[in-house]
Amino acid sequence: MARNDPRIMDVPIGLDASGTRTESDSLGEIEVPAGHYWGAQTQRSLIHFDIGDDRMPKAVYHAYGYIKKAAARVNGRAGRLPRWKADLIARVADEVIDGRLDAEFPLYVWQTGSGTQSNMNVNEVISNRAIQLLGGRLGSKDPVHPNDHVNMGQSSNDTFVTAMHIAVVQALEARLLPALARLSDAAGRKSREWAHVVKVGRTHLEDATPLTVGQEWSGYVAQIDDATEHLRTTAKGLDRLAIGGTAVGTGLNAPPGFGDEVAREIARLTRHGFTGAPNRFAAQASCDPLVRVSAALRTLAVSLFKFANDMRWLGSGPRTGLHELDLPSNEPGSSIMPGKVNPTQAEAMLMVAVQVIGDDGAVSMAGAEGNFELNAFRPVIINNVLHSIRILSDMIDHFREYLVEGVRLNTSKLESDIERSVMMVTALSPVIGYDESAKIAHRAISDDLTLKEAAMKSGVSERLFDKVVDPERLTRPGVAGDGRSHRTGR
Amino acid sequence: MARNDPRIMDVPIGLDASGTRTESDSLGEIEVPAGHYWGAQTQRSLIHFDIGDDRMPKAVYHAYGYIKKAAARVNGRAGRLPRWKADLIARVADEVIDGRLDAEFPLYVWQTGSGTQSNMNVNEVISNRAIQLLGGRLGSKDPVHPNDHVNMGQSSNDTFVTAMHIAVVQALEARLLPALARLSDAAGRKSREWAHVVKVGRTHLEDATPLTVGQEWSGYVAQIDDATEHLRTTAKGLDRLAIGGTAVGTGLNAPPGFGDEVAREIARLTRHGFTGAPNRFAAQASCDPLVRVSAALRTLAVSLFKFANDMRWLGSGPRTGLHELDLPSNEPGSSIMPGKVNPTQAEAMLMVAVQVIGDDGAVSMAGAEGNFELNAFRPVIINNVLHSIRILSDMIDHFREYLVEGVRLNTSKLESDIERSVMMVTALSPVIGYDESAKIAHRAISDDLTLKEAAMKSGVSERLFDKVVDPERLTRPGVAGDGRSHRTGR
Amino acid sequence: MARNDPRIMDVPIGLDASGTRTESDSLGEIEVPAGHYWGAQTQRSLIHFDIGDDRMPKAVYHAYGYIKKAAARVNGRAGRLPRWKADLIARVADEVIDGRLDAEFPLYVWQTGSGTQSNMNVNEVISNRAIQLLGGRLGSKDPVHPNDHVNMGQSSNDTFVTAMHIAVVQALEARLLPALARLSDAAGRKSREWAHVVKVGRTHLEDATPLTVGQEWSGYVAQIDDATEHLRTTAKGLDRLAIGGTAVGTGLNAPPGFGDEVAREIARLTRHGFTGAPNRFAAQASCDPLVRVSAALRTLAVSLFKFANDMRWLGSGPRTGLHELDLPSNEPGSSIMPGKVNPTQAEAMLMVAVQVIGDDGAVSMAGAEGNFELNAFRPVIINNVLHSIRILSDMIDHFREYLVEGVRLNTSKLESDIERSVMMVTALSPVIGYDESAKIAHRAISDDLTLKEAAMKSGVSERLFDKVVDPERLTRPGVAGDGRSHRTGR
Amino acid sequence: MARNDPRIMDVPIGLDASGTRTESDSLGEIEVPAGHYWGAQTQRSLIHFDIGDDRMPKAVYHAYGYIKKAAARVNGRAGRLPRWKADLIARVADEVIDGRLDAEFPLYVWQTGSGTQSNMNVNEVISNRAIQLLGGRLGSKDPVHPNDHVNMGQSSNDTFVTAMHIAVVQALEARLLPALARLSDAAGRKSREWAHVVKVGRTHLEDATPLTVGQEWSGYVAQIDDATEHLRTTAKGLDRLAIGGTAVGTGLNAPPGFGDEVAREIARLTRHGFTGAPNRFAAQASCDPLVRVSAALRTLAVSLFKFANDMRWLGSGPRTGLHELDLPSNEPGSSIMPGKVNPTQAEAMLMVAVQVIGDDGAVSMAGAEGNFELNAFRPVIINNVLHSIRILSDMIDHFREYLVEGVRLNTSKLESDIERSVMMVTALSPVIGYDESAKIAHRAISDDLTLKEAAMKSGVSERLFDKVVDPERLTRPGVAGDGRSHRTGR
Repeated sequence: MARNDPRIMDVPIGLDASGTRTESDSLGEIEVPAGHYWGAQTQRSLIHFDIGDDRMPKAVYHAYGYIKKAAARVNGRAGRLPRWKADLIARVADEVIDGRLDAEFPLYVWQTGSGTQSNMNVNEVISNRAIQLLGGRLGSKDPVHPNDHVNMGQSSNDTFVTAMHIAVVQALEARLLPALARLSDAAGRKSREWAHVVKVGRTHLEDATPLTVGQEWSGYVAQIDDATEHLRTTAKGLDRLAIGGTAVGTGLNAPPGFGDEVAREIARLTRHGFTGAPNRFAAQASCDPLVRVSAALRTLAVSLFKFANDMRWLGSGPRTGLHELDLPSNEPGSSIMPGKVNPTQAEAMLMVAVQVIGDDGAVSMAGAEGNFELNAFRPVIINNVLHSIRILSDMIDHFREYLVEGVRLNTSKLESDIERSVMMVTALSPVIGYDESAKIAHRAISDDLTLKEAAMKSGVSERLFDKVVDPERLTRPGVAGDGRSHRTGR
Repeated sequence: MARNDPRIMDVPIGLDASGTRTESDSLGEIEVPAGHYWGAQTQRSLIHFDIGDDRMPKAVYHAYGYIKKAAARVNGRAGRLPRWKADLIARVADEVIDGRLDAEFPLYVWQTGSGTQSNMNVNEVISNRAIQLLGGRLGSKDPVHPNDHVNMGQSSNDTFVTAMHIAVVQALEARLLPALARLSDAAGRKSREWAHVVKVGRTHLEDATPLTVGQEWSGYVAQIDDATEHLRTTAKGLDRLAIGGTAVGTGLNAPPGFGDEVAREIARLTRHGFTGAPNRFAAQASCDPLVRVSAALRTLAVSLFKFANDMRWLGSGPRTGLHELDLPSNEPGSSIMPGKVNPTQAEAMLMVAVQVIGDDGAVSMAGAEGNFELNAFRPVIINNVLHSIRILSDMIDHFREYLVEGVRLNTSKLESDIERSVMMVTALSPVIGYDESAKIAHRAISDDLTLKEAAMKSGVSERLFDKVVDPERLTRPGVAGDGRSHRTGR
Repeated sequence: MARNDPRIMDVPIGLDASGTRTESDSLGEIEVPAGHYWGAQTQRSLIHFDIGDDRMPKAVYHAYGYIKKAAARVNGRAGRLPRWKADLIARVADEVIDGRLDAEFPLYVWQTGSGTQSNMNVNEVISNRAIQLLGGRLGSKDPVHPNDHVNMGQSSNDTFVTAMHIAVVQALEARLLPALARLSDAAGRKSREWAHVVKVGRTHLEDATPLTVGQEWSGYVAQIDDATEHLRTTAKGLDRLAIGGTAVGTGLNAPPGFGDEVAREIARLTRHGFTGAPNRFAAQASCDPLVRVSAALRTLAVSLFKFANDMRWLGSGPRTGLHELDLPSNEPGSSIMPGKVNPTQAEAMLMVAVQVIGDDGAVSMAGAEGNFELNAFRPVIINNVLHSIRILSDMIDHFREYLVEGVRLNTSKLESDIERSVMMVTALSPVIGYDESAKIAHRAISDDLTLKEAAMKSGVSERLFDKVVDPERLTRPGVAGDGRSHRTGR
Repeated sequence: MARNDPRIMDVPIGLDASGTRTESDSLGEIEVPAGHYWGAQTQRSLIHFDIGDDRMPKAVYHAYGYIKKAAARVNGRAGRLPRWKADLIARVADEVIDGRLDAEFPLYVWQTGSGTQSNMNVNEVISNRAIQLLGGRLGSKDPVHPNDHVNMGQSSNDTFVTAMHIAVVQALEARLLPALARLSDAAGRKSREWAHVVKVGRTHLEDATPLTVGQEWSGYVAQIDDATEHLRTTAKGLDRLAIGGTAVGTGLNAPPGFGDEVAREIARLTRHGFTGAPNRFAAQASCDPLVRVSAALRTLAVSLFKFANDMRWLGSGPRTGLHELDLPSNEPGSSIMPGKVNPTQAEAMLMVAVQVIGDDGAVSMAGAEGNFELNAFRPVIINNVLHSIRILSDMIDHFREYLVEGVRLNTSKLESDIERSVMMVTALSPVIGYDESAKIAHRAISDDLTLKEAAMKSGVSERLFDKVVDPERLTRPGVAGDGRSHRTGR
């Protein structure tokens, strides 16, 4: 601290005032609640955009905290801001990052399409909080001005989309990717546990050739893992930050190299490999990287829909459904039907998946609507992407804990299904031909016979049948000794 | 009140207890917060479905209040419930309707697909609140049982979709339809105010023949009015209530005529023409009427998108855009560009429209996924439909107040555009033919001439030109004396 | 025919010429294939828009035939066109209407957003075909000029959207609405045929209380009928035609009343209640009525998705699925699994429904993108709407003929399911209470008992059980003598 | 050729027969047109699925040709097929690959969800064509059986999705990726050509700080390049082929290693790095890799929407629009307005983008609907993905050739806009502060002054103004000597 630097006091967060305080901006003066740090522009937004219940997600503000801190540090190091002022902004930015100022960010999603009002909300709050720590007069903008100092070298046009990237990356890393890893692990355990339990496969919902329950679950695991890998790869596009482009991508009012330096500082603070975007014009005029991530979330939802849908069908019954699985009974299922248990976690997952697909529809259309140097549909984009990540993350954990981990096999049903199945006739096909095999299958179904009965009535010897039609071995056709060794080229 | 009826006390809402209370359901006992009325099933749902921030909208519970009240009255009148018990349930239902018990309905959207948990939440809260008023023991279910009495003759399968219909009808009538009427009025005033101000029309974004500003605005009004009418017509499908179908549509456990009688009672209570659905199987197995309403909201959003988009383009500038309109300056537009004013209300409307289209995508897919006797995607449907109505209603009012009502004409720009416009050449076409007219237009553009200059250089007399190319009259071609009277069949 | 009228020859359709012919428009000359009637603008479009395989649907041109005929008649009656010329245009328009000139309309969907190129295609073909009938020189535009005569009083901006409305109305009336009526009839017959066959209901895919197969099918019928009614109501919005608005909605270059008169003429020709749109500005600047019809098609698809999905699930098996229904075996189901039969018609219907939902997504976004006096996304809108109508119409007929009409009940499965079902315990609930009933249900499932066994072990008398739990009567709870008469208010 | 091998004749493609021929399958006999090679199952599909005009894309059959050829080779090498038979199948497969048998593949998109009918179409055609070459009897299935030989070791369940992957990869590589590279090059040339032409930037459609035209275009290039890179990366997921999984993923009836070996053979034939999928259960039960590619196409469409939308807006006018660009006049724009030129290529691109977004909606929902061992929505998925690729590829080439390459700058408009622009006031902000700068901007607009006039009236010296507000230098703020050097930390 230099000799003439002002003294920073240790005032806890909070304004002990009631009524209103006068704040001003370039449109003039306006009264704001005296108990809050925000200034004139935040207040105008609250008046003009009091629409619905959707508030700009707090994660955006936390991300903005990193930006303001990083920019202040870079400006401070370069002497564009006195060191004490840079440090003070950084200190308050830490309060933003930690969520301690969350109550100061009340704005709605439905606001200006650039996110300017949320950026100004941050600038105003940091300014007034800093002024408080200096013992100054709130609303004076002196000596820490929301635009000239907190926003120094920045525009909403570059910072808001930067905050969007940071917020999404953090949500993915903190919540969704770990939840996916846990689900994959849990499903993988089931796959291994049931690696040798044979069941009747189904294609077109119709009985097909057998596979093991473990094989079926390995498919769920593979879908989850592929979706995760795709999401991770796609999210790399978010590492490139628009910061430094300022108003239209040229970087006007930001010094040379400022954006890249701030990006590096953000990378240090967040311990994530952020860098400056190679083309700031594209980075501000579009939200393409987020549209791509939204699409990856959508495809993940598509995969999870299939998993959850299979779960509820395989658990259907108990008497007239497929009932291969016993799903955990987490709650009574019906207000009128006593004793009913329903696949509620699966249903919730299906609904979440449908919502994510809907959210992505909004993101997609919003992403297309950029004009010239700005995409002005950013708030609707970030709100939907963060919403999708949030509900997917939570849902995946609940689905895992309250369904996947507790699901049990109904082995008696699996066994009786195998006994009654007809489609193992397929194994006879390489031996006696497709056409003969088809006749046997039709006979079994129309005469209500087991496959073996029908085969023998059609002239297949019991020895051949038993050799070829071994359900367990049919699930591992690569194993030596299978029926196909009878088959030679003709 | 009959002689032996229990005494109802006048206890205000609230439980003065801390810690937990033991409640039970068919799966056993569970601890619930002692300060809340809800019971075991609500508590189980809170544990198993703590997913995201999306809570079941309160409007659904208010609608449920009507159902519980109406059912209690009908059951009471028929003697299936003692009158005092029916009255007591109705009394507590009024507290639900009025929102005084809102804090007791904490459940999430992502729950069982039938909405059973929210129905049970209502049943449990009414049961315990009634027991409180009787001085009984909370959780005892005696003498007002959540299933046997509050839910008497009902199932979640019929009541939840009934509540969805009621909630949407009320939201439309209380909020969206009035907001639309106000917007239509405001735009209609502008249309009349500017009925005679001539401007250059645009097709394909390119200069076209003139029209008046009032004519252009009459198009907005017509779009709004048609969308409103369509919404109103479509919403009539919601008047048919599933109530009475109980578990699977047959009405098991409900007496004959029960559903229709409850529907009539709901109609009386809400003063809206609700009736029993003609086919309860369809009413419970699908959410088609809500899918249709969602589509009508979506089409409304499509119309509003066009209106708002025109507004921001017509207000673009101030120096290099179209700038026919001066939009109100509600707030500073930029954190970096001093003095900038942006079309923020229009942008917010565009984003709301995009969101409604996204919401509708979720509703559409969810609506398709019914199976057999139930569509188990109801929570995601009702949440999206109510969300769309909410943000549309609020947005429309803000857009009207902060943009439409304050917008002014930039008449100097309108006039200079008319003077420089070339496409009034169209009026010459019936007189001198399309091909000759095209040559004049090309000449004007390539030689940077006014249309009149180009026409006269091409041999059109000044007298003819002035007679035929009168911008104001070109906007009212039906008026006598227009250029077409020169035209005769050849 | 007046004395000096030119002679119309009776030349069959066709141009006996090879190589090219020179045609011209306001951009200059261009070679067109000598064997075709089209002119310069069509040829330019073929060059500049040779994109994909999607051609503007022929139905649009047939609809245009009505417009050109009606406009010619109106112009002829008013003396703006000589009667012989009006008659000649009308005659050629009849060839367009009848599809005899279909080969002359080769343009792609991906063209100008107003549809101008398709309008000019019609104008050019009628001009040249008329010139041929007069023995004139093709491409001379004399004495029947594509713009000055065939397009007299018209613009693409009013006529193309008029043609869209006519084409959709005709497709609905000729194809989709009749197909829906036939499907409703066929499903209704099944509903009546199986009115008394009892089955286990399913909610959440889980066993629920019984209903009859006929009741279940009555739900499909109700969904279809409601969707049909909604589609019919919504399509009324298409009756209002933009014709008369010309370039920007003002009607410039069309005489007073022209549009309404042409609309009446179109109504006469098509025997459908078309009228002039009350607001031409909205009618040309938006495609809202078509967006609404698309949404109605989408909701129909949603309803059909549920029907088809139920069909394939109810037909699943034959050994390990639900197998309540035997679906017709239209073809072998598998290239590898002999004897397999799959629910292929249901699958095709599901895919058609998904496609219609996708088509509607395109229509919705396109519908939002109008600017000022024109929506320039018309070709993509009309192509998707007509595509959806076409595939729905055909699919519905095939689904009806090859699935619905041939489906049979698997009564032995239905009966054994009823015998094993547990959820009829619900009927006991009003007699012994929800909680006791739930215990019985849990006991039946965990101890693998029938419901009756479990009930009796729990103290319910056989006499009471048999009286209350009668599956057939449970599907008609309104009938006298049911279990609920035991129940009295307490 | 071994000694006893049958003789293969050199018969050209074609069947010189009229009327019908009897073919058979496991459901019995059926008449097929004698002039075609297809058999009973194809014919059944033609009857049962004559729905709309959407035919299974030929690219799927060409891809199938590779599969059948590769499988025959692998089976031949292993001795499961005699070498002559394997060679014969491979030879006919080459005819399939080359498109010479395209007329034999008439089936519709709306068919069985597994694609079995198209697989059998291929099997039947190869069988009969091979029999023709052997001089045998068509329909005899001898000695080349459609199932036992052409389909040896295969199922529709593994081969159809394999064909989908191959077809999409080939369409991307042959058409879309090269078209994107060409567009990027063309736009890049414009970017370099106009690297130093200054223009007024626009954010929120409102005037903003300047940039160069070249910078703006560099944004388009970056968007295209990023979308291309993402598409390429995402498409790698298609390299993993399901082949070898047969009916349910276990590989029943395929020998050990068969699938991987066939995949390698396909890789050799197509010169593309195909391999066997690591998990065949996921590969057959889902279409996730294609859903991801569809999403990548969708995001590309989003990027192109922005580019095309900017083009039409920047070309708007000529007198009352932005008119920074002169778009090529490819055709007359209006049937009624002579001399009108419209941004038709941009409009077509916007419509294509909207269609791709719609197509992707169908793919997304279809992708979610897999059940157990099969996603039975494959035809609708492949049709939409290939459709999107096709229209994107063609559209991109046309947009490039007929718009991008021919677009010219309207430099006089660009210059006058710069002169009149106010937002360069931003450059003053770091020198005199945001609040003072805002006042100058408001003054300029309200008093209709140039920025310089307003600045000087507000006390800014001409020397300072000229030094700081140099439009060209404002686009390169990193360059030494810019205004910010005045700025020091305070």
